[in-house]
Amino acid sequence: MTNVAQAFVPGHITGFFTSNPDPDPTKAGSRGGGLALTEGVTVTARPAEEPRAVLNGDPVEMEAVDRVLDALEAPAEIRGVTDLPLGSGFGVSGGMALGAALSVNEAFDRRLSVNELVTIAHGAEVQAGTGLGDVVAQARGGVPIRLEPGGPQDNDLDEIPARRRIEYHVLGELETPEVLGGDTDALTEAGKQALSTVVGEPTLETFMRASRRFSRESGLLTEEVRRVIEDVTEAGGTAAMAMLGQTVFALDDGLSAAGYDPEVAAIHPGGATLEPAPDP
Amino acid sequence: MTNVAQAFVPGHITGFFTSNPDPDPTKAGSRGGGLALTEGVTVTARPAEEPRAVLNGDPVEMEAVDRVLDALEAPAEIRGVTDLPLGSGFGVSGGMALGAALSVNEAFDRRLSVNELVTIAHGAEVQAGTGLGDVVAQARGGVPIRLEPGGPQDNDLDEIPARRRIEYHVLGELETPEVLGGDTDALTEAGKQALSTVVGEPTLETFMRASRRFSRESGLLTEEVRRVIEDVTEAGGTAAMAMLGQTVFALDDGLSAAGYDPEVAAIHPGGATLEPAPDP
Repeated sequence: MTNVAQAFVPGHITGFFTSNPDPDPTKAGSRGGGLALTEGVTVTARPAEEPRAVLNGDPVEMEAVDRVLDALEAPAEIRGVTDLPLGSGFGVSGGMALGAALSVNEAFDRRLSVNELVTIAHGAEVQAGTGLGDVVAQARGGVPIRLEPGGPQDNDLDEIPARRRIEYHVLGELETPEVLGGDTDALTEAGKQALSTVVGEPTLETFMRASRRFSRESGLLTEEVRRVIEDVTEAGGTAAMAMLGQTVFALDDGLSAAGYDPEVAAIHPGGATLEPAPDP
Repeated sequence: MTNVAQAFVPGHITGFFTSNPDPDPTKAGSRGGGLALTEGVTVTARPAEEPRAVLNGDPVEMEAVDRVLDALEAPAEIRGVTDLPLGSGFGVSGGMALGAALSVNEAFDRRLSVNELVTIAHGAEVQAGTGLGDVVAQARGGVPIRLEPGGPQDNDLDEIPARRRIEYHVLGELETPEVLGGDTDALTEAGKQALSTVVGEPTLETFMRASRRFSRESGLLTEEVRRVIEDVTEAGGTAAMAMLGQTVFALDDGLSAAGYDPEVAAIHPGGATLEPAPDP
């Protein structure tokens, strides 16, 4: 048994979502739709004197990771490495939480199932207030459609069958806890309508259209993001806003064709997974 | 929109299973556990004068594929390429059915969701009598544990978190329809016990032990397979029988260490997926 284990968690862009609070954090969460990305977070776990988290070499305070380590009773050091920007709607905190759960289970021989580990990571994210649906979406991969809120015991997932190049362009950060802590009624109503549209026609094009409409109707669309989306549309492409971030994502070469210099990734076909153990 | 689309479906080794008939083929199926393999079936779909299936260059008669094309109202040519052996417990027919559903949906712009496509392929396999649980397991990937029978609307999956080298050695074929058509009470009882064991401790080692016990208690273990499994055990490894085939699979280098010359693969981390379109 090795004492070091590694997991990869794809990034996740949310196109639209609802907010569904519940006193039980494993039942709380959101409905919605998003894209798992080939860019993600690589997480290693190893025994340590006391629990700590490191992201791209710097010590970080991540409540969701602390909660995962607490639930698994593991004084581990969690090291995450990612090229994704933080606080811009890519699910980095969900990736750290889920990656910690998978790698700690392996390194500390906790013998839990994937559903149990996803439930722990999802509940930790919800309690930390840093995400509602990223973890279950990142566990699934592809283009996950979250039909019901909550962890694996309660939610119900479907998926749009698609593999495509995805471009993204980050304008700035949005504070997730701030948005989720406010009045979310309009947001949830807009999210339900978007979900209904995508369930009726589960294609990427419909997903993008529903996401654009959600960003307007939820009131989350910023002026700066709106202008970039319009540029892409005028150049013949299709783009939308990543929730929750000041980030625009586009299918194929939508942003490049509009003259931007975007980051390039693709839809990641699978979900979070253990990786072969790294050198200790 | 391209007229040619391609999908990859991982192979699937079943370790243990139950048989759960139902008049509705989307509810019929099996509980059980298995391993998705990095070796699989690559399937392309393209429009044709009339429906036909080709496997490794040879025309084949596959009722499950015919049923998928019928359900999707698509006169497609389905071409499968695989290094996996047929009729030896690797889910090649399930792979052809699921690969056909995914690739036809894309090539013919049918706009169905992944759950809908998996349901069609699962029902087609069950009606053809060639499989009970491969399709849903191949859609999931990893080390899927099927807690309930049926397609995605009815079943309930969990997964053992694991990535490992897998070796396999094929001794001969077993006829799936023949086994599944007979008295399956003892088999189903043994399958339930194996499932309960693995749910209690979801590790690969427990999965292998439960699979070995299932092969004995179900009456499916052949003398030839038993001898190979013993050879692996004596060499310090862990092996079991692939259902339904005269096939032995082992963790890590179990078969090589026992002096066999096995095929080598690994656990496939994700499920079936579209691939970038091939050259027409």
